[in-house]
Amino acid sequence: MLTDKHVVIIGGDARQLEIIRKLSALDAKISMVGFDQLNDGFIGASKQTMDDIEWSTVDAILLPVSGVSMDGKIETIFSNETIELELDHLKKTPNHCVVYSGISNDYLDHCTATADRSLVKLMERDDVAIYNSIPTAEGTVMMAIQHTDITIHRAKVAVLGLGRVGMSVARTFNALGAEVKVGANASHQLARITEMGLTPFDTSNLKDELKDIDLCINTIPALVLTSNVLTEMPLHTLIIDLASKPGGTDFRYAEKRGMKALLAPGLPGIVAPKTAGQILAEVLAVLLTKESIH
Amino acid sequence: MLTDKHVVIIGGDARQLEIIRKLSALDAKISMVGFDQLNDGFIGASKQTMDDIEWSTVDAILLPVSGVSMDGKIETIFSNETIELELDHLKKTPNHCVVYSGISNDYLDHCTATADRSLVKLMERDDVAIYNSIPTAEGTVMMAIQHTDITIHRAKVAVLGLGRVGMSVARTFNALGAEVKVGANASHQLARITEMGLTPFDTSNLKDELKDIDLCINTIPALVLTSNVLTEMPLHTLIIDLASKPGGTDFRYAEKRGMKALLAPGLPGIVAPKTAGQILAEVLAVLLTKESIH
Repeated sequence: MLTDKHVVIIGGDARQLEIIRKLSALDAKISMVGFDQLNDGFIGASKQTMDDIEWSTVDAILLPVSGVSMDGKIETIFSNETIELELDHLKKTPNHCVVYSGISNDYLDHCTATADRSLVKLMERDDVAIYNSIPTAEGTVMMAIQHTDITIHRAKVAVLGLGRVGMSVARTFNALGAEVKVGANASHQLARITEMGLTPFDTSNLKDELKDIDLCINTIPALVLTSNVLTEMPLHTLIIDLASKPGGTDFRYAEKRGMKALLAPGLPGIVAPKTAGQILAEVLAVLLTKESIH
Repeated sequence: MLTDKHVVIIGGDARQLEIIRKLSALDAKISMVGFDQLNDGFIGASKQTMDDIEWSTVDAILLPVSGVSMDGKIETIFSNETIELELDHLKKTPNHCVVYSGISNDYLDHCTATADRSLVKLMERDDVAIYNSIPTAEGTVMMAIQHTDITIHRAKVAVLGLGRVGMSVARTFNALGAEVKVGANASHQLARITEMGLTPFDTSNLKDELKDIDLCINTIPALVLTSNVLTEMPLHTLIIDLASKPGGTDFRYAEKRGMKALLAPGLPGIVAPKTAGQILAEVLAVLLTKESIH
């Protein structure tokens, strides 16, 4: 339980509602900023403005997945007010106060460092990335069904990379009956791919390995699908690039050659916002409970 | 091989192209009617009109999946000509000539019976229905991802019916990590559901079994999701009805109660037309080869 814990939740999208729901169930004292157009009531949660908050009692501050802008502004879909996180707010908090954000930038790094407060970047955590790989894999399945005229079942699928996302995507397409091969370069990854019952190949040899592929899913955040590689692939191959922007595909060349290549970051918030919010809520609940014990 | 076999392929959609491709590869002599706007060339295939066909040499006639209209008209997407199948055409064929169609109606039944020619309804065949259940299951996955805000993974899914489609759908959602329960009434089906590692329940008890379900997929061609059953289901439950029209759901009541219920027949031709064509081509190739042997 989080009884007597004071948490400030600021702005954001539908995902924050799942977090409020969870922390409310755990009996936290919640101050919601940027939710004035929201009609749902949550036990123990009150709507406030940044100026109303009694910062000296705040144990944790929760920012949205997108964090803050370079001038400290916070996005919200439940308010028309402009909300801004200032260094002064942080300075007024007790020393043990922790700031949780999806991602960070120079502004937030600077603020938390100057105020000497801990900053947790949730989207960079391994557990969050692995949980999020589930809706990412499902979103990829949806796109593959929408953008091809064949079934995933029996399709020849290549997954590039066996990281947190690559493993989930490979497993999911294999479960749907696709013939899945996975490209990696570390020997322990090639071993794991084999153990999973999939076909491993070395990414140093991409040009030869993608010659008969129906669907290529990239998770490697580097330019791997170069014009040299693309030119050897079948024209009908669909490319879904899950690597963070700008992706790992030469999109200009793919378009020139008439190949369909889609950059698809941020799938969890799009295809399953409720689950994506629950993922963050579960991890936050554990983190806040642990902090309570120390 | 189908060397010396004369097959007339009439009208239809993209699926017929896969059939032409396959039979051409097997060396059949193909007369294509209703493809005058098609630019692809196929070896051994010539574009003709109904009047040009030398009916006395025809071993098989292939109609589209939709068959013919009640006045004998045949739909085509590669021609503006009106194409009509007449009793006289059939009468001119040799006795062993077989007519293959996706489905039939009174007109086609009457024509083939009067001419005393065999009629094979491909979509009613068990093998075709089972192969088609693969793209149907994938189309259902796509709709489930599109129309919910949660992941399929860990969702509570109920599948009604363990027929040709129900089994594939149940297996697919289970492979994606859903908690799948399957409703049936025959004891051997309840045994099979258990063997598959899924949770069986008796469909006589629907009202109590669907109280905590996120997604309900119906495959039973009878009104099973009545207002009595729907009224006990959670409001957020998504219903995907795969039973042939009019489906097994009281759609009027579902809408009145604010529940999302989707009737989704004919998914294979929509989500995977190429695979759907290949399915028919493979089955036809086997059937035509067998006829050659006799």
